[in-house]
Amino acid sequence: MPFEIKILGAGSASPLYNRHPSAQFLKINQKHHFLIDCGEGTQFQLIRYKIPIHKISHIFISHLHGDHYFGVMGLISTMHLLGREKPLTIIAPPGLSEIVTTQTRISESIFNYSLNIIECNTETYFRILEFEDIEVYTIPLAHRIKCCGYLFREKPKKRRLINARLPENITLLQRAALRNGEDIKDEAGNILHKNEDLTLPPKKSFSYAYCTDTAYTESIVPYLQNIDLLYHEATFLNAHLQRATDTYHSTAEQAAIIASKANAGALLIGHFSSRYKDLEPFLEEACKIFPNTQLAKEGDWHILKEEHEHI
Amino acid sequence: MPFEIKILGAGSASPLYNRHPSAQFLKINQKHHFLIDCGEGTQFQLIRYKIPIHKISHIFISHLHGDHYFGVMGLISTMHLLGREKPLTIIAPPGLSEIVTTQTRISESIFNYSLNIIECNTETYFRILEFEDIEVYTIPLAHRIKCCGYLFREKPKKRRLINARLPENITLLQRAALRNGEDIKDEAGNILHKNEDLTLPPKKSFSYAYCTDTAYTESIVPYLQNIDLLYHEATFLNAHLQRATDTYHSTAEQAAIIASKANAGALLIGHFSSRYKDLEPFLEEACKIFPNTQLAKEGDWHILKEEHEHI
Repeated sequence: MPFEIKILGAGSASPLYNRHPSAQFLKINQKHHFLIDCGEGTQFQLIRYKIPIHKISHIFISHLHGDHYFGVMGLISTMHLLGREKPLTIIAPPGLSEIVTTQTRISESIFNYSLNIIECNTETYFRILEFEDIEVYTIPLAHRIKCCGYLFREKPKKRRLINARLPENITLLQRAALRNGEDIKDEAGNILHKNEDLTLPPKKSFSYAYCTDTAYTESIVPYLQNIDLLYHEATFLNAHLQRATDTYHSTAEQAAIIASKANAGALLIGHFSSRYKDLEPFLEEACKIFPNTQLAKEGDWHILKEEHEHI
Repeated sequence: MPFEIKILGAGSASPLYNRHPSAQFLKINQKHHFLIDCGEGTQFQLIRYKIPIHKISHIFISHLHGDHYFGVMGLISTMHLLGREKPLTIIAPPGLSEIVTTQTRISESIFNYSLNIIECNTETYFRILEFEDIEVYTIPLAHRIKCCGYLFREKPKKRRLINARLPENITLLQRAALRNGEDIKDEAGNILHKNEDLTLPPKKSFSYAYCTDTAYTESIVPYLQNIDLLYHEATFLNAHLQRATDTYHSTAEQAAIIASKANAGALLIGHFSSRYKDLEPFLEEACKIFPNTQLAKEGDWHILKEEHEHI
């Protein structure tokens, strides 16, 4: 199951109506365990939703407004108290390292594990991490302070062998060549078996992008083309467009326009202002432009997988 | 109703079993609204228990371990977002100001209200605040880093006039003299009315002390003599006395010994280690030495008042 996304919080700066600040848990291919943003109380949400804290290897922070990072110190302290030994990497805009080291110095805290803070350049689209099966990119966003989104993308997969059709004496090298899309040839270069006779197309490679906080900016659309799921902030309704513009936030309609221009598979909206108690108008506003929209609700899982895959 | 104490959190560093980290709301004489310690999530607890955040005028931080202060940034940011204009004072050991200003600088945050951070000397018993009716003292505690408790004490009250017995022609000055315990005399200095014929003794002055985190130390007993309610940490059971000693914490038995030596009216214990799921053994252990002990439980109110006073 490629992508599993758990919403831990989708409120904005004021924690009203029991909405927790931004945090998402992202599990990819059953082996990558990431946390995206970490507002105050994220460690409580992780415990509430029984997310295995010790498995989280990376924390991605979009920007250094408190509702996106005030939970970092508590979580990394708890990781230490829970006996963590494996390293933890935090990707964040410049400044988080100073914030963390100031506090560990003053509280005379030493962690039992290696804490690596990578301060990223939020101004460019940049591959900040690469694994065997996935890549993570920063996406420059338009906010009041340095802020980036994150794009999680599976690498292109290899073609799948149709075992029943493979020649009996096929070698390992020939199998690899087939998975890479090549034909099987003899030593003189003559085609013995055409690739498409022995293989099926690769499985789909999924992608997820997390874009918060940001003013409406079409500059991000090229990075999001054909994304399977886009999380885009929708702090305001279009009725408060001017307020959104003034505060470098977006409306539900604007999020839907970005999803539409990016030809996204689905849109998830969140970071709702505390001025709105009822969130249904957000869904209505976005769906008029981009019907496959959902509200980010705490505790919900969002799954990206092939149709025939089992959960 | 002199003292009303609401427990917002009484867990220790690891937030297990739904125990929140240290925080208490203290309301005195219906007019002072204080917060004592502010672990992560305190702002959510304040909202949950419908405490009027805007009324809080002072925050008292015992020490700069995260479970006692990680909620400060979130709370003071929310106060700004809720439109606060009146000043806020935070009393804390040295270092909090740097922690706060580092984060407000990096997040480019400016608050609409005056934030005063008073960094106190945790090494001495010292009157850090005085109001018309109450005083607040720091109590030096024995912890791994600089740490102090806080003593909240009503000033001695004046004698109460028995109106039915007052002479008809009594002057304002004579009334004031009676309230201060003086007799009414003629110009030659002869006693016309003895004070005890016209007045009743003053109402009781209440006191509350908050002592966490600390190793067992009898040095604090003189400051706590005849205290009405003592909150003393009890991180461990006596079965783990060595662990308590090693980590500069106390056991339930030790908290009870301090309460007993101080001749306290009642003892409240908290800051329970996450190694204990069941807290009843804490109560049993403390009650053997100091029977009037209660467990600090989230959401509970503890009231100090004259017996005939209504809630």
